[in-house]
Amino acid sequence: METTKLVSEIRQKKSFLCIGLDTDLEKIPQHLLDTESPIFEFNKAIIDATHHLCVAYKPNIAFYEAHGLDGWKALKQTIDYLNQNYPNLFTIADAKRGDIGNTSGRYAKAFFEDLGFDSITVAPYMGRDSVEPFLDFKNKHTIMLGLTSNPGAFDFQTLSHNEEHLFESVIKTSQKWANADRLMYVVGATKAEHIKAIRTLIPDQFLLVPGVGAQGGSLSEVCRYGLNSNVGLLVNSSRGIIYASNGLDFADQAARKAKDIQLDMEALLS
Amino acid sequence: METTKLVSEIRQKKSFLCIGLDTDLEKIPQHLLDTESPIFEFNKAIIDATHHLCVAYKPNIAFYEAHGLDGWKALKQTIDYLNQNYPNLFTIADAKRGDIGNTSGRYAKAFFEDLGFDSITVAPYMGRDSVEPFLDFKNKHTIMLGLTSNPGAFDFQTLSHNEEHLFESVIKTSQKWANADRLMYVVGATKAEHIKAIRTLIPDQFLLVPGVGAQGGSLSEVCRYGLNSNVGLLVNSSRGIIYASNGLDFADQAARKAKDIQLDMEALLS
Repeated sequence: METTKLVSEIRQKKSFLCIGLDTDLEKIPQHLLDTESPIFEFNKAIIDATHHLCVAYKPNIAFYEAHGLDGWKALKQTIDYLNQNYPNLFTIADAKRGDIGNTSGRYAKAFFEDLGFDSITVAPYMGRDSVEPFLDFKNKHTIMLGLTSNPGAFDFQTLSHNEEHLFESVIKTSQKWANADRLMYVVGATKAEHIKAIRTLIPDQFLLVPGVGAQGGSLSEVCRYGLNSNVGLLVNSSRGIIYASNGLDFADQAARKAKDIQLDMEALLS
Repeated sequence: METTKLVSEIRQKKSFLCIGLDTDLEKIPQHLLDTESPIFEFNKAIIDATHHLCVAYKPNIAFYEAHGLDGWKALKQTIDYLNQNYPNLFTIADAKRGDIGNTSGRYAKAFFEDLGFDSITVAPYMGRDSVEPFLDFKNKHTIMLGLTSNPGAFDFQTLSHNEEHLFESVIKTSQKWANADRLMYVVGATKAEHIKAIRTLIPDQFLLVPGVGAQGGSLSEVCRYGLNSNVGLLVNSSRGIIYASNGLDFADQAARKAKDIQLDMEALLS
């Protein structure tokens, strides 16, 4: 998907919400467990109930890999369902991959070509040749970990080198790589005070912001520092939306939660 | 697998060779492509021909994920075959995973419990809570990226903070985490001059060393700085062994290459 198409979808829906499909058999409604593919049935119901309120879906691949072959089948069913029924929605494989060049190329092929995701999250530790194979793909987006939302972000990401945090070095250095205009960055909502500094480094690029909701980040803080002329933000919520209820009304309740966030976003955009 | 068992296997075989199963449909012998599971048939033949010369096998997960469901089936067949037929061999899922805590726990379950690997490679960027879920597993090993063998290693891993390289901070800091005795580290053979410094930080821990062979690292250099009283090294070779021939004799030729390395290792151990 081209970035312009994503921006236009955001403007039209007055929403920059991304819904995280971290689908967990222990948390989904019991009545779905008797279906042939409970993970997919859950995702399908959530997607059908919320697609008009959000602009992106982000399955976290770990939740699918945890179920081996059945998990991969459910992942494939989910992305196929999205691409066939809601082609205007941006899809993110939250995989945090990264390996030496020829190996990263395999991951890129798997997620971009075979599964057909619009984007994938990648880890920066192995440097340029571990990321560029993802950037080779036209109209695909590579979302690099910058400053993450978890407590461990302070172990290494905020170490300083020449008065620059590691996450700042990661962002600055990666801007020099081939096709850097296809890069977006993960910046946790729990680190809103750093978004201002990040925006001076990359005024134009999209940020994927997890950590609103269950992890405690504030949407208005994120917007204060992160919004740019193209909106430039995808704010993710997973558990707060998809597990709003584990009864028969789970999809309706998820839509209610998503609507609350969309209305907040609409207010913040105007 | 307990570390003592791995060390005893190394002593008995006079080998600390790990064979990387980076199995690529474009490189394996053509006659295997007609079988039901070409990737598994290739791996099985390589394993049967080389198991007495090495102590570990390391499938790189990207090569399996690149084939979707068929790839996952082949991965499962491979690890099941190893665990059933060669339980003394150490198995490494080269996955380089890492995510927020509850998500890393999913990856740990997938690779340690469901697939039954002895170990997994993980990326350090997201810090403590992204790694500890792997360290929770008894008799399993977490192999953290320290200093990798690829050119991109110099982008971030060698940045300095308080006169300490990032990879040194990663090693020192992670030594304080729960169950750090279950940690091993990836250190590329192409960075042999750094292994000496790393050994002063972690004299006792195992290092997984990729980069000998196709990537140009020297086995004797690695041993000069890396060997400890428990050997403490697993040196990996992938393409140099498994693609020694793409004819009908591929397994025999792989065994010949593995034997060459084993003999070098035997000499270096004595």
